Amino acid sequence: MNTRITLDHGSGGLASQNLISELFLRHLDNPLLHDLEDCAVLPREGQGRLALSTDSFVVDPIIFPGGTIGDLAVHGTINDLAMRGAMPLALSLGLIIEEGLEMDVLETVIRAVGAACRAAGVEVVTGDTKVVPAGKADRIYINTSGIGLVADGVDISGGNARPGDAVILSGTLADHGITIMTCRAGLRMEGDLRSDTAPLHRMIQRVLDAHPGVVRVLRDPTRGGLATTLCEIARASRVAIVLEEEAIPLRPQVRAACELIGLDPLYLANEGKCLLMAPAREAEDLVKTLRCSKAGRDATVIGRVEEGPPGRVTLRTGVGGSRLLEALTGEPLPRIC
Amino acid sequence: MNTRITLDHGSGGLASQNLISELFLRHLDNPLLHDLEDCAVLPREGQGRLALSTDSFVVDPIIFPGGTIGDLAVHGTINDLAMRGAMPLALSLGLIIEEGLEMDVLETVIRAVGAACRAAGVEVVTGDTKVVPAGKADRIYINTSGIGLVADGVDISGGNARPGDAVILSGTLADHGITIMTCRAGLRMEGDLRSDTAPLHRMIQRVLDAHPGVVRVLRDPTRGGLATTLCEIARASRVAIVLEEEAIPLRPQVRAACELIGLDPLYLANEGKCLLMAPAREAEDLVKTLRCSKAGRDATVIGRVEEGPPGRVTLRTGVGGSRLLEALTGEPLPRIC
Repeated sequence: MNTRITLDHGSGGLASQNLISELFLRHLDNPLLHDLEDCAVLPREGQGRLALSTDSFVVDPIIFPGGTIGDLAVHGTINDLAMRGAMPLALSLGLIIEEGLEMDVLETVIRAVGAACRAAGVEVVTGDTKVVPAGKADRIYINTSGIGLVADGVDISGGNARPGDAVILSGTLADHGITIMTCRAGLRMEGDLRSDTAPLHRMIQRVLDAHPGVVRVLRDPTRGGLATTLCEIARASRVAIVLEEEAIPLRPQVRAACELIGLDPLYLANEGKCLLMAPAREAEDLVKTLRCSKAGRDATVIGRVEEGPPGRVTLRTGVGGSRLLEALTGEPLPRIC
Repeated sequence: MNTRITLDHGSGGLASQNLISELFLRHLDNPLLHDLEDCAVLPREGQGRLALSTDSFVVDPIIFPGGTIGDLAVHGTINDLAMRGAMPLALSLGLIIEEGLEMDVLETVIRAVGAACRAAGVEVVTGDTKVVPAGKADRIYINTSGIGLVADGVDISGGNARPGDAVILSGTLADHGITIMTCRAGLRMEGDLRSDTAPLHRMIQRVLDAHPGVVRVLRDPTRGGLATTLCEIARASRVAIVLEEEAIPLRPQVRAACELIGLDPLYLANEGKCLLMAPAREAEDLVKTLRCSKAGRDATVIGRVEEGPPGRVTLRTGVGGSRLLEALTGEPLPRIC
């Protein structure tokens, strides 16, 4: 096999077939994908409503402390499904590869896709590979789409928050975003900065099973970070949200890196964390359940939903002041995921 | 609104939200997409097995005679579903946009997505937009993924062809591929060259309804063209296939352009045609049903499935000779779809 991707690998001919059989099937094989049809037909699934989600990943660099664009893509779409209470059934994998990408880099990424799928118990059942000429992409872009099932009685949406709800965060903030930005800045930080990329569906399943009908909102604060995500929820639910700055869990090395680079952790992407909103009286029990999962071991209440101007998100600072949080408008942070 | 796409449009903040509400929802609005969740939950669907398909589109140019990358992406994924006998339920839309893309070009593409969806009776229910810096993509790449339902009793696969089956082609060959290649070569041809991009699911539904249990193989000869697609089917089904060159429908202007550029129409992509294989005794009736649909008005039998070396595809030429057809190996034709 070539040591680099050529245009021929995307032509749909023999080179494409070899790439699929020698690399993709080696790491991703399962009965449905193995058929190499243009479309996978799933065995009859369980009960529930269908959920569909899609996400394209263009992160730079494609390999970073804690993960690669491959596992990030698997986790990202699983989490988008989980945020509606859907348990994933299957994933699709669409690759856009730049001519000249080193074959061993591609293999590292595809191996990470396979490992992430196995760990999450979800399979890639169909895929597509395109190759574009050198200079028309940046190494590799990945789209994952996913389908899942939402059990009867589960109704979770960013529009469901109500005054009196607690705002729970499942863990520390900004780990993914600051890791990518320090990589790109070429900085080496003291301590261990790594992406938090992780699948959240099992933790969510556990919460929904243990607390049926309790959770109203789930959302993962990816691009735009916690602040932007909360603004969206507050607007969609027509409520105000108040955060307690001191309650927001932040690893010391993340805080230090944010201060050094001058980035606000409230606006940095997270790839293995979620927000939950539920009646305040249930919050303590929910946090206990979350902490039973590795992905939720630092879960904590960080604020509350209030009546107030729809969309207003306020941060109460440690010294007793307060700061209005707005959706990200300033410097964009491109290619963070 | 800006006249060009900026990195801010992909940041997940206010500019992203404005792009979605002012452009995407204007052309694609429907109740599910309107919620702007990261994942769509569909109403309870009908009976049948679930199908999932994905395709990324990187065609160059993005606007061409007969279509744009937008409608091509909608049709492509609908057709991949239809080729397993699945009727589409919903689509996802993943955009990777190059910074600097003119907003009116983006609008042309998204308008084409909307028009194609309405014409096909399928909706985009969830989406994702990424923006990459100038020089890290080529204007716009689109991923569409789709889910569909396969009715009980329908079992269609590239591995199902049997000796004695007729090979039916639903219409003229190579229209899409030659249109893109003449565009790229900067040639102006006599006559009307245009892409055949079209959705095939309704034609397929009509065939499956009128001839239950008859069709064994459906496949759209896209990248790699008719020859490569037939090689894949012959290999998967462990049969040989014989084509009659004179039976293959080819528009005169397509034939002329292929001769001028030096491309073999058997290896050029089609985006609105399909191959069907079914017992020869049913072929005449199937062709009649296909011709009732606009997309199948030139349908005809072009060959037959035989016992023979698995994977062998032979073209019987007009002068009584024969030529072995192999999967595409030579010059790749990048970014044809």
